[in-house]
Amino acid sequence: MGNTFGQVFRVTTFGESHGPAVGVVIDGCPPRLPIVLAEIQTQLDRRKPGQSRLTTQRQESDQVEILSGVDQGLSTGTSLAMMIRNADARSKDYSEMRDKYRPSHADYSYQAKYGIRSVEGGGRASARETAARVAAGAVADQILRNAGIEVLAWVESVQDLRAEVNDETVTAEDIEANDVRCPDAAMAERMFERIDAVRKDGDSVGGVLRAIARGVPPHLGAPVFDKLEADLAKAMLSIPASKGFEVGSGFAGTTMLGSEHNDAFYADASGRIRTRSNHSGGIQGGISNGELITLRVAFKPTATILKEQETVTKDGKSTTIKGRGRHDPCVLPRAVPIVEAMFRLVLADHLLMHRAQVASI
Amino acid sequence: MGNTFGQVFRVTTFGESHGPAVGVVIDGCPPRLPIVLAEIQTQLDRRKPGQSRLTTQRQESDQVEILSGVDQGLSTGTSLAMMIRNADARSKDYSEMRDKYRPSHADYSYQAKYGIRSVEGGGRASARETAARVAAGAVADQILRNAGIEVLAWVESVQDLRAEVNDETVTAEDIEANDVRCPDAAMAERMFERIDAVRKDGDSVGGVLRAIARGVPPHLGAPVFDKLEADLAKAMLSIPASKGFEVGSGFAGTTMLGSEHNDAFYADASGRIRTRSNHSGGIQGGISNGELITLRVAFKPTATILKEQETVTKDGKSTTIKGRGRHDPCVLPRAVPIVEAMFRLVLADHLLMHRAQVASI
Amino acid sequence: MGNTFGQVFRVTTFGESHGPAVGVVIDGCPPRLPIVLAEIQTQLDRRKPGQSRLTTQRQESDQVEILSGVDQGLSTGTSLAMMIRNADARSKDYSEMRDKYRPSHADYSYQAKYGIRSVEGGGRASARETAARVAAGAVADQILRNAGIEVLAWVESVQDLRAEVNDETVTAEDIEANDVRCPDAAMAERMFERIDAVRKDGDSVGGVLRAIARGVPPHLGAPVFDKLEADLAKAMLSIPASKGFEVGSGFAGTTMLGSEHNDAFYADASGRIRTRSNHSGGIQGGISNGELITLRVAFKPTATILKEQETVTKDGKSTTIKGRGRHDPCVLPRAVPIVEAMFRLVLADHLLMHRAQVASI
Amino acid sequence: MGNTFGQVFRVTTFGESHGPAVGVVIDGCPPRLPIVLAEIQTQLDRRKPGQSRLTTQRQESDQVEILSGVDQGLSTGTSLAMMIRNADARSKDYSEMRDKYRPSHADYSYQAKYGIRSVEGGGRASARETAARVAAGAVADQILRNAGIEVLAWVESVQDLRAEVNDETVTAEDIEANDVRCPDAAMAERMFERIDAVRKDGDSVGGVLRAIARGVPPHLGAPVFDKLEADLAKAMLSIPASKGFEVGSGFAGTTMLGSEHNDAFYADASGRIRTRSNHSGGIQGGISNGELITLRVAFKPTATILKEQETVTKDGKSTTIKGRGRHDPCVLPRAVPIVEAMFRLVLADHLLMHRAQVASI
Repeated sequence: MGNTFGQVFRVTTFGESHGPAVGVVIDGCPPRLPIVLAEIQTQLDRRKPGQSRLTTQRQESDQVEILSGVDQGLSTGTSLAMMIRNADARSKDYSEMRDKYRPSHADYSYQAKYGIRSVEGGGRASARETAARVAAGAVADQILRNAGIEVLAWVESVQDLRAEVNDETVTAEDIEANDVRCPDAAMAERMFERIDAVRKDGDSVGGVLRAIARGVPPHLGAPVFDKLEADLAKAMLSIPASKGFEVGSGFAGTTMLGSEHNDAFYADASGRIRTRSNHSGGIQGGISNGELITLRVAFKPTATILKEQETVTKDGKSTTIKGRGRHDPCVLPRAVPIVEAMFRLVLADHLLMHRAQVASI
Repeated sequence: MGNTFGQVFRVTTFGESHGPAVGVVIDGCPPRLPIVLAEIQTQLDRRKPGQSRLTTQRQESDQVEILSGVDQGLSTGTSLAMMIRNADARSKDYSEMRDKYRPSHADYSYQAKYGIRSVEGGGRASARETAARVAAGAVADQILRNAGIEVLAWVESVQDLRAEVNDETVTAEDIEANDVRCPDAAMAERMFERIDAVRKDGDSVGGVLRAIARGVPPHLGAPVFDKLEADLAKAMLSIPASKGFEVGSGFAGTTMLGSEHNDAFYADASGRIRTRSNHSGGIQGGISNGELITLRVAFKPTATILKEQETVTKDGKSTTIKGRGRHDPCVLPRAVPIVEAMFRLVLADHLLMHRAQVASI
Repeated sequence: MGNTFGQVFRVTTFGESHGPAVGVVIDGCPPRLPIVLAEIQTQLDRRKPGQSRLTTQRQESDQVEILSGVDQGLSTGTSLAMMIRNADARSKDYSEMRDKYRPSHADYSYQAKYGIRSVEGGGRASARETAARVAAGAVADQILRNAGIEVLAWVESVQDLRAEVNDETVTAEDIEANDVRCPDAAMAERMFERIDAVRKDGDSVGGVLRAIARGVPPHLGAPVFDKLEADLAKAMLSIPASKGFEVGSGFAGTTMLGSEHNDAFYADASGRIRTRSNHSGGIQGGISNGELITLRVAFKPTATILKEQETVTKDGKSTTIKGRGRHDPCVLPRAVPIVEAMFRLVLADHLLMHRAQVASI
Repeated sequence: MGNTFGQVFRVTTFGESHGPAVGVVIDGCPPRLPIVLAEIQTQLDRRKPGQSRLTTQRQESDQVEILSGVDQGLSTGTSLAMMIRNADARSKDYSEMRDKYRPSHADYSYQAKYGIRSVEGGGRASARETAARVAAGAVADQILRNAGIEVLAWVESVQDLRAEVNDETVTAEDIEANDVRCPDAAMAERMFERIDAVRKDGDSVGGVLRAIARGVPPHLGAPVFDKLEADLAKAMLSIPASKGFEVGSGFAGTTMLGSEHNDAFYADASGRIRTRSNHSGGIQGGISNGELITLRVAFKPTATILKEQETVTKDGKSTTIKGRGRHDPCVLPRAVPIVEAMFRLVLADHLLMHRAQVASI
């Protein structure tokens, strides 16, 4: 199956890269939430292609239409559907793909699984489907803002270029200040140049996104399987091109001693229980502890490149393939709103689940 | 909620560290599968405490009892329940824990969420609940073996000590050849010494597990949210003390160029479509491509240490706490069967889902 | 939540009576299934308003558009979305409804639950949302026909007028032979006259639908909670205006003795195990036994009537209300394709679940 | 699958009639709820065999053991497991059943589905599994009582003998006043005699249970598929031997005119919006409207009878079978606590879902 995410705040998406439309149905949205089309559109605009020369030049205005669940600007509590028509298909670019499998794309595995696939633009495996997630994430953001929760993501590294960013003070404005979406302005410039150079060479690069959540109360998450970090890991690894996930100290924490890694508790001036360090990444035993939630997501270099590569035809014949025309030399700038959206979907779902089980007993 | 995992092969677990028992109910188990108690017990014995001086000396025989779903050694297709009685409780060791929050444990976050918690041994947050997962994983293993799929995990690194292991040739026997469960014998010895030294110092260390699956056909997984790597990431991050997950090239892949990272397709002598490299880790577009599935899981150093640490009481008063008696200086050797179990649960679930949707149309 | 149905063949619907559109997303649809737009449209045409003077004169062409999941006439196995634009809104007819609660409609309970509601046409509570179910049911029918399963429903009674129909021999053509969708032609005429008389009087009537499934193999269903009759009961009671459900002997069976009610087994000429009677309605222990599956659904008289009725305003003030213009004096003829659709959704889901758990072990 | 019920308050059961135990795991139970073993035991005692000569003489003390999720008498919010050991197996009574299919039991359909079955006592298809439901229902009752909701069920009819009971005034004590669990004392005596006469004849009878819920606030339920009556219908049809379900006016309502059936709204002295009649059964548009929720469940005559019946062997050979020893001549008195339990599971689940989506926005 695979097209539904969440247990109580549940999103179901549809749509292929070159079909008529992509869209999402949200089930379980709280009623009387302001649903501001312009805010959803703002998020979609951050994800859409053609924002700068770092991103694919495919022309998509990504105009969202609300199909149900909103009455006079407020959510009704019933299923909330949104749709984005696809515009710029150019399916002629994809004729070669009908016969040849693109390396490190989903062409072969989809064909092997289903015995059929939507060839143009990768069909359902295209990053285009993430537009639906971003729209849903903008609705989740309404719920989170009401609860005082803020989610931010930014580009932390491109290849070996790594930014220095202060988790505590970074703002959404800092992130949007440049096309790379890296709030370290000096490093952002170097990243831009790197990506642009790679683009000119018809190649691609990967990197790491950092994401945080502020204001999360100490009770989101669940024991055992639905640990908050487990649901976040699933959310992030469901994003196309992601290859790794860390929460808190992550892989670096594996070289520390327990006496260094443990987060000592103390009570702050207001009596609130806090931790001195935050190697836990704001989650202990699967449940948020009130500290900043911190995570990282690894993105591989874009699979589409404009260089000749070895591959096979559907019949298993040896051949070569070479991407043409439009491509993203680096997915990271456009992945920022997608990571934020998935982060928000997880937090909103756990917020509602907490209300179900614990709130107002 | 949080105590159920999987969609079609669905396991639900119960039990606290110092309650009467831990256990699991499997719903959706195929019928007429040989359920061999000794095999399940073997897996539980790999996870149980007291195996060597590297692991906690808590005495638990972890004898599993089958409560339902098996008739004359075969699964009946109805709910299959298994239970492991807790024996060695020693709840006096935990009296201090009633008032003080142990750093980097779940004590505080559980209390903050539920307003109550099972204090002894961490209750539901204890790694003891993973015994239930291991029992379920042994049943999943029956399904996978019938399909020709083998899952293996081993200790790849402890702190900075990193083993060299050949994914293609490593065997279950190699892994079980030493107490560390690291198939690089020379490095295993150094790891043993490191862990033992840290143990004597009352401290703890973390490390990285490597896991692979062999023989996975090119069709497990699903598009979008239930990508195979997404479900694996959730599975692994749901294990106590895990902090990170990588599939294929993982974080290291973020420094490569697309032209280096892409896995070129070719047809092997038998005509089977293969890839030259396997940076994808055996999964493309969320669906297995027939190559080895490869992943890594980061485990932090054990939170329980025998050194004095700063913390607070339930009332927020400043105090110190110091672990006593039994603890695991390093969770990795015992985490090996847990990682294998979770890996198997994910693969078995996706195997059955594939049959539901695609097989025998 | 409430907008998703099914576990493996899973449909999620959206849309209000007077919003932009209604639609459905199917997750888990098998790939390479012929998706024939004309067949889906045929089912929608059986449900649409304005078919005869027995049904509301609202003008809706109910043209379905496929948004995703179909490639060159075949399902791709990824999420299959369909949408039907709403045309004839006439929201002026509903101005009175903004302030007054219509008796035996969902106006009050929706308002009490959500604190907001889509007033026009009953919003999400409108029978218009069933168009989405009918479209999904037409896809399920493709799966069932491949498995040799046929589902039929017809009007068995209107008020006290009860048809005599032979379950074994009745055909789809017999049912479509008249506007009432009752295959007993003589009784259909009397029903027509009854409904028409009531319509002229501005009143409404209810009745009972009968539905059967032929060719169901002896293995659909599951023990305990997801018994086949349990899922069918839920499916039928989820249809607007339904008030009761029977399988097999139903309420009438409660007056029989066990020795009369039990269905004796015998082996037919071909050696197939059959039952002499079918009081079980083709399901035993929650699992189909290979006999005809038989059920009944009770539909109350339409709540919208053109007579003055006592009610209250949103502020609790006493007032009266009177329906105007278009209404269905009897929902039963249009409920036939809806009952068939829900029946098919249940069977298709259980068919795929059976394949997941049992088939091709 | 089939062994899990509910979305947020989720119960998973296990256990066969003659296996080691039956039991239940509750996921999503609110924390800090008093879990009083004696109250759970009281409900189990109402369901257990051997209560009077109307029920099977199998000796089962049905002592419940809590395995997890309770700390010092309060629920912890983590998975709550309960187990009831089976005592009186007498499997020799069942030797004949290994070869012959009992008419109108699940023997044949289980065998046809799974190719294997737990023969003794019907295995998982036995009404014995409902003990687990009753235990879970007792926990749900704690949640409902906190919310001011009371659920009652009683025997309304046995064959043609039909009691007169006032929904508004009937009490739990009235129901428990006799072995039949019919609060119409005079009719209860006639029912007792009827059942006893049938028992002596080795035959069985069915009947109808009535159930109501008082104090349900006007907001439980959901639109479309998870309508409150739909989930109740599923709950009731999942009980062994049930064949029909009605909410409100049910099948009788199909003979009324809309003008008779509609429930006029008015505001009572306190300003609360009420309905003059309650043909809706307390649910409109799938959501409770604050009136009494009323339903009926049809139970067929027990399939086990002590008379010779025609059947076949596993190999399809013609033979006869005759029940021996212990049986329930009428399931209805023992079905009362089961119907109450399932009713409570549905209401508790919808109560928590309402809190998730709507409460404390």
